[in-house]
Amino acid sequence: MNSWEDNIRKVVPYIPGEQPKQSDIIKLNTNENPYPPAPGVRKAMENMDLNLFRLYPDSNATPLVNALAAYHKVNPDQVFVGVGSDDVLAMCFLTFFNSQKPILFPDITYSFYDVWADLYRIPYERPQLDINFHIRPEDYDRENGGVIFPNPNAPTGIYEALDVVEDIIEHNSDSIVIIDEAYIDFGGESALPLLNKYENVIITRTFSKSRSMAGMRIGYAIGSSKLIGYLNDVKQSYNSYTMNQASLVLGVEGVKDDAYFKETLNKIIDTRDSVKAELRSLGFTVTESRANFLFASHNTVTAKELFAALKEGGIYVRYFDKPRIHNYLRITVGTKEEMDQLLDSIKNYINYKND
Amino acid sequence: MNSWEDNIRKVVPYIPGEQPKQSDIIKLNTNENPYPPAPGVRKAMENMDLNLFRLYPDSNATPLVNALAAYHKVNPDQVFVGVGSDDVLAMCFLTFFNSQKPILFPDITYSFYDVWADLYRIPYERPQLDINFHIRPEDYDRENGGVIFPNPNAPTGIYEALDVVEDIIEHNSDSIVIIDEAYIDFGGESALPLLNKYENVIITRTFSKSRSMAGMRIGYAIGSSKLIGYLNDVKQSYNSYTMNQASLVLGVEGVKDDAYFKETLNKIIDTRDSVKAELRSLGFTVTESRANFLFASHNTVTAKELFAALKEGGIYVRYFDKPRIHNYLRITVGTKEEMDQLLDSIKNYINYKND
Repeated sequence: MNSWEDNIRKVVPYIPGEQPKQSDIIKLNTNENPYPPAPGVRKAMENMDLNLFRLYPDSNATPLVNALAAYHKVNPDQVFVGVGSDDVLAMCFLTFFNSQKPILFPDITYSFYDVWADLYRIPYERPQLDINFHIRPEDYDRENGGVIFPNPNAPTGIYEALDVVEDIIEHNSDSIVIIDEAYIDFGGESALPLLNKYENVIITRTFSKSRSMAGMRIGYAIGSSKLIGYLNDVKQSYNSYTMNQASLVLGVEGVKDDAYFKETLNKIIDTRDSVKAELRSLGFTVTESRANFLFASHNTVTAKELFAALKEGGIYVRYFDKPRIHNYLRITVGTKEEMDQLLDSIKNYINYKND
Repeated sequence: MNSWEDNIRKVVPYIPGEQPKQSDIIKLNTNENPYPPAPGVRKAMENMDLNLFRLYPDSNATPLVNALAAYHKVNPDQVFVGVGSDDVLAMCFLTFFNSQKPILFPDITYSFYDVWADLYRIPYERPQLDINFHIRPEDYDRENGGVIFPNPNAPTGIYEALDVVEDIIEHNSDSIVIIDEAYIDFGGESALPLLNKYENVIITRTFSKSRSMAGMRIGYAIGSSKLIGYLNDVKQSYNSYTMNQASLVLGVEGVKDDAYFKETLNKIIDTRDSVKAELRSLGFTVTESRANFLFASHNTVTAKELFAALKEGGIYVRYFDKPRIHNYLRITVGTKEEMDQLLDSIKNYINYKND
């Protein structure tokens, strides 16, 4: 090995779900929204002022920050935007988990948390979810360098009631608590009202799921102006202009059309709940997901083989080769038609196996 | 102070040049290109497939990486793209300057280097440029945790010949050497051919200057496949999808039209050189800039007062209140018409002061 290699930070990267390039597949593996973004987004793109492109964007992302502040009825200085909630969360890890004490997050959760902790050399501990994949709040009642969990959780879809969330916050007045609400629009109560009571809480959101804009990479955090100020300082020390002109213009448009937004949300929720019932009737254990995906385990067919069989047939779902969940599949809720094809394929495979 | 504030990383952020919102100003303060991006970029935007927006982009940015590899005649595994060269450089600092030894960069240089070093707690030393703002290569012949410098340098515009660059690389076989070529298209020889000889070198580039696409936030690094591999690992540990669909599509288009590219470059170079001569005739010391800006100091009027007077008149240039350069202005090369207005304003101010 060359001696210059000693100076390199070596990490084990996060592996995202596959983005296959064929167009004839059914893609239910990365929790994308099956419906297009609001019609206004297309219009805004077509009318975009190309002259903007030669100029640097607004480094404070002002139009988008203002639109989100108005939407959530908070002050603009309480909103931080980034290149997807992954950018926002990574920046939060760097900014807020700057301690020698371990941060805490569940053993089963978004698989990027430990990757960010490793990247920034942040120690961590992972309290076990209970047997039903629920958080045990008492596990978070100990000294730590910060707390983070998604609500609803991924890949389980399990939602914690707001009093559980508040219990964790209350027992962590010496830490910063981040609630990752990537999936909250699909069900459950947001912790946003708690921001009025607690200055040490950050809530993160994304345009990638409920707003059908994964391709534009927009995420945001809401918190006290104090926390958002520190986050902005770190961001401005990293890259002045993270949000390009297109994401600023289209992002503003993406929060405008509430009727379209609710309509697509309701379609996804309806599909989710009917597919859940069907999967159960086929012999699956399915969690009470409040997200835009289902988390399911069959009573005879292993997740690994079903994953492979579905992929063979052009249907991509997500399989995690990890302790406690290796027999589950995470299945994104697609259109009604896509889910019908999924159910047909599953039935065929189960019948074939039981023959 | 609340005890949770102890866990926060507190930094002094980089302060970018102003992005004033009035449209009637002449903006010569952030080295943007005065000409629009290649006509193909507009077409690509108008024809963009909105359906892409609901899906995550390619996490390897394959189309853009391939386009850049073909353009520079290197392998795709030697190219890394990011959200502007600031994202690329910040990622390089995190990846390659992971040592307890100080990294080295000039005392007068791009003002983000020390900000990134502070953000990531990387120790650094800043060898002084000589009196003509040239690098003294012998200053870089000592133990270090890495080396970085721009060529041409900013804000001076001074270019170092390739043998000086190679001398520094040769004396740093135990470190990673980054050459920031943000401005190389405006003059000077790129260090790209040296990549065939040295595996420990990274060259960074941006679409923000010569390619008129500051608003789209595209930058890239070229280096050995080994270094680019480590960089990708860190990037994939930070954010799988940093480049949004729009930046991928428009970025590919931005490297296509070489005739348009060279035409705008030549216009900027011509304007730069004629304005340089005029400024000298007005009593300015002006460096031999090879970039898309001029670095100038007047023999009677202070930079600070001239900066304020120009701003008052709606012309924004850049002033740095820093040792050794506090009496210089950095002036972006705009269109011929913009520069004529600038020269008129400068003449008027000098005459008024000399009355």
